[in-house]
Parts: sequence; C-alpha cells; structure tokens
Amino acid sequence: MKIGFDVMGGDFAPEAPIKGALEARESLLESDVSIVLIGDEAVIKAELEKNNTSIDDFEIVHAPDQIGMGEHPAKAFLKKPNSSIVVGFGLLKQKKIDAFCSNGNTGAMMAGAMLVIKTIDGVIRPCISTHLPRQNGTMGIILDVGINADCKPDVLYQFGIIGSIYSEFVYGIKNPKVGLLNMGEEPEKGNLVAQATYELMKDTKDFNFIGNVEGNDLFTEKAEVFITDGFTGNIVLKQAEAVYEILKSRGLNDDYFERYNYENYGGTPILGISSTVMIGHGKSNPTAVKNLLFTTKEVVEAKLAERIQNVITEN
Amino acid sequence: MKIGFDVMGGDFAPEAPIKGALEARESLLESDVSIVLIGDEAVIKAELEKNNTSIDDFEIVHAPDQIGMGEHPAKAFLKKPNSSIVVGFGLLKQKKIDAFCSNGNTGAMMAGAMLVIKTIDGVIRPCISTHLPRQNGTMGIILDVGINADCKPDVLYQFGIIGSIYSEFVYGIKNPKVGLLNMGEEPEKGNLVAQATYELMKDTKDFNFIGNVEGNDLFTEKAEVFITDGFTGNIVLKQAEAVYEILKSRGLNDDYFERYNYENYGGTPILGISSTVMIGHGKSNPTAVKNLLFTTKEVVEAKLAERIQNVITEN
Repeated sequence: MKIGFDVMGGDFAPEAPIKGALEARESLLESDVSIVLIGDEAVIKAELEKNNTSIDDFEIVHAPDQIGMGEHPAKAFLKKPNSSIVVGFGLLKQKKIDAFCSNGNTGAMMAGAMLVIKTIDGVIRPCISTHLPRQNGTMGIILDVGINADCKPDVLYQFGIIGSIYSEFVYGIKNPKVGLLNMGEEPEKGNLVAQATYELMKDTKDFNFIGNVEGNDLFTEKAEVFITDGFTGNIVLKQAEAVYEILKSRGLNDDYFERYNYENYGGTPILGISSTVMIGHGKSNPTAVKNLLFTTKEVVEAKLAERIQNVITEN
Repeated sequence: MKIGFDVMGGDFAPEAPIKGALEARESLLESDVSIVLIGDEAVIKAELEKNNTSIDDFEIVHAPDQIGMGEHPAKAFLKKPNSSIVVGFGLLKQKKIDAFCSNGNTGAMMAGAMLVIKTIDGVIRPCISTHLPRQNGTMGIILDVGINADCKPDVLYQFGIIGSIYSEFVYGIKNPKVGLLNMGEEPEKGNLVAQATYELMKDTKDFNFIGNVEGNDLFTEKAEVFITDGFTGNIVLKQAEAVYEILKSRGLNDDYFERYNYENYGGTPILGISSTVMIGHGKSNPTAVKNLLFTTKEVVEAKLAERIQNVITEN
C-alpha cells in the first residue's frame, strides 16, 4: 500500500508533516505500507537531513508549488498544476498511490475529490464524519460534519448507508445502529427535513435504522452512527472540541475525554468518493500527522469506496 | 409580586414542588414575593403538614385536576379546565399572579402560552433559551432551543432582539454581542437560512450583531447571545447536558462545569409572550424548584414582555 502525503500543507509545514511521516514510517516498517512524500524536493531533503534520515527511506514526488491556506480552493486548484495537492490528486487518479492525505487547504482537497476523483456512481453528495467516543471504549460516528450545509432527505438516507459501512469496516461494529439526530424521539419530531428523512429511513433494509436520537445520546451506545446535515454536525463537532479545550484549560485530565483530542486520529476521509482522500487538521503536530497516516492505512484497508459502491448499486 | 406555581407538575410531584416552594419562601420572606400554590387543596395541605408548615403561610388556589406528562398537550388543555395548569393560566390572564411556572407537561405550558397569554404584538414566534456558562463567571444564552424546528430568517432576526433584551436585563450585560450560530465565520457560510439571516442582521440597529459564530465559540465571550433554530439549539443544549452527566459519572468535579447543572436555574421562560411563563424541568428536585422560583422572580423584575414589545413596535 502506498500512501501519498502532502508535506507542504498545514500550519506547521514542512517540519511537522515530515516529522510525523518519519514517526509513522518507524511504526509501519514491518507492514507493506510505504509513504510517498509530495512537495518541494529540496525542502523535503533538507528536512530529512535535519532529522538524520536518508532520502532513500522515502519515495519523493517533486511538487514545487503549493496552495496556501487562504487561497480560493477551486481557483487555486485549477491555477497551480504543480502544487503538492494537485500533484497528489494526479498520482491518486493514476493509481500510483492508494490514498492521498494532506493537512492543507480543505477546500482544495474537496475540489480535488470532486473534480479529479469524483463521487461514486449513484452517490448524491460526499460527506465527512467525526468520531464520538463512548465510555465503554468503542466509537460512534456522526456525519455529515461540514460539507453539506443543506441536505435533502435522500442525501441523509445515503449518509445512513455510508456511515453504516464506515462504522462496520473501520470501527469493527457489526450491523451498527443508525440514528437520525433530532430534537425528540418520536417520529413526528424535528424540522421538515428530519420528518421526511424519518419516513424514508423507517423501513429500510440498507442499514439498521433505530429511529430518532437526541443530543444527549451522542456519546452513548444508543446508536453507532448519527445522521445529520453538515450544518448541525459541524456545530456538534466544534462544541465537542470546545469542551475538550475547556477541560484541558481547567487541568481536568481523564482517559475518556482525552479521546476527544483530534491528535489521536489526525484526520478524516472524504466519504462517498471513488478513492481514499484524507483531510488532516491544519494545526496538526507530528503526533497528529503520524496518526493521520495510521488512520489512512485503516481506511484503505476497509475498502470503503468499493463497499459503498456495492450497496448503492443494489439500490 | 405574586408567583403562581403548579405543585402537581413534574415527575416528583407533589413532594418535590412543595418542598422546593417552602425552601424558596424561606429565602424570599424579606422580599415582596409571595408564592401562590396551585393544585389539589387537600394534597397541598397534607404536604404542608408533613413539612410542619402552616397552610396560612401560602395562598392556595384549588385545582383538583391535573394534566399528565404523557397527555396530548392541546387536547388536555381544552378538556381539563380544572387542571392546575389551566387554572394557573387563568390566574395569570386575570393578572391575579405576575408569573406562572410549572414542572409539568411542557406542551400544555406552550398551549397555555399561545392560547391564553398570546404572543406580543408583532412577535412572529415565541422561543425558549438556555444559558451557556463562560469561564469568566458570566453567562451567555442560546435561543431557540426547542420550540421552533424550522425558522425563517425574520424569526431568527427577532430572536436577536429577544435574546439581546434577555441578556441585558436578566444577566446584566450591556449591549450584548449577538452572534448567528453557523458552521464558519464568513458571511457566505452556512445553510440557506443562515445565509439569508446574516444578510438581514448585518446592518441592524436593533441589536449588536457581531456576525457568524461557531460551535467552539458557545462557551466563550465571543458573543453573549447565540441565535439558532430550535432544532440545532435543542441538540446543542442536550449535548451540553450529556457532557455534564459524563463528567459527573466519571467523578470529575469542577466549579465551571457545575454551572451546566440545570438544578441551579430550575427552568426557563417562554420568550416573546405577553406575560411571564416559566417551564421547569420535569425531573426537578426541591433545589431545582427553589431555583426555578428565584429565576422566575428575576424574569418578572426584568420586564421582558414590556421591553420586547417596545423594540418590536419601533420596528
């Protein structure tokens, strides 16, 4: 397996990405995973030397240009063919790598996913998820958390399929329970979209729909997959981040809440597209980068695109 | 000031409501506040005796019937004229009490607010808020948190007016900063409703609009008033409740997070109606009841209805 990694992206590039890649490589030496560093060759070589690492330990693909964090994503994507992000997507498209990940401009990553990789046939909209730690040690997920502000019921229905596959093959939960995030449990509760989505989901055979779930269920085993639009999901995600930051600032250390720390995962895949594209956090330190690369390996192994394709095609 | 209190409502009625009312009375003896107990007279007398309290210490209004927690709110409201909730609204309508509060059927309380008390002239939809504790000791609020699942931009705009007045006159924050809860800071971010609401709010003189705010801003001083629809707000509220419960279950005690405990407030007013109606938590213990009565006093003193009316009329 080859994981392509943009070392020019993120707030602490290229130091943090390269340090993180070195740490990941250390742990992955025994596996079949190799990491392809994408970025300015001279910069990469200099960083590797600083870390006393031979350039022969990595495959390097030269991409002299970069897309800045503040640039207009789609425009930059089209204007900068030699940027690390565009080069990375090219490699992925040509199947020279099995996954592409970056801590850089998220919009440009989305643009590449849509323009170069494209959605799986039949998938209306891609989405992204985030994990919801539970006290019993397992992990729930919520999707969408940011790509689709307005979602029609058929889009939310597909998130049920996608989330279910993700939960099963990345988190190992058989027949995961799928809940529709709502403001009450009863079928008639919620806004018009939630009500219509409930109708669409209630008798489905595509996933294990358990009905409406609420905000206080988010960190419980009531469901493994929480479905919502990207507007509400994004607020849920950032509220959880806020709580983690407050706990830290108040010196409250706890194993459970430590699992809210994004550094443990590093990033999240764009779901519903034809290959594996991972979005890392812009503020990633080397630990977060290392974990992003580990998560990428798991996502590739889960063969999500193939599995989602199969279910959607049957529909 | 006379506060009418339904002692038949809530999961632990009549014991908890009456015990809480006794505790509140103790603290309010020196004030001009008297508490009017509404419910079955025989039941009230028996409870007061159990607590070694003379029935002369309270004004009692006999209401032999009650609306159960599971009953259809509007139907029950119309069919049970002698229930404590319907009797309470009658007293409030006749201005025999200055506020009415109950831990009972929330839907029936809403029905009474809409059918008997009615919204302030010009207010499109009433709403409810919840508090957002900040680490500096002050309090933010978010509204709506549950009455209006779908909100049009003009409704959200009015929540800006209502929330601003609430923040200033209940929490004492001059010229409170009002933020629109969104999935990003930029004006073009968010779902269609949020985008249109931003346009409506951006140049307002009715309140101090500071732009879009995000989930990670909820417990910060970035804004004092967070505006959202009842669907998203309800999820935010219940997620915060979930975090509080998890902290407690993990034995993490902290002054800041203790302020998430609803018992400290006991309930919340229905905002945008012509009088003071307070909804208490169904699970309220005596402490929560006592604090509900204290909060009610503060809300009456804040003259919210009158102040909201003034701003809406100028519009």
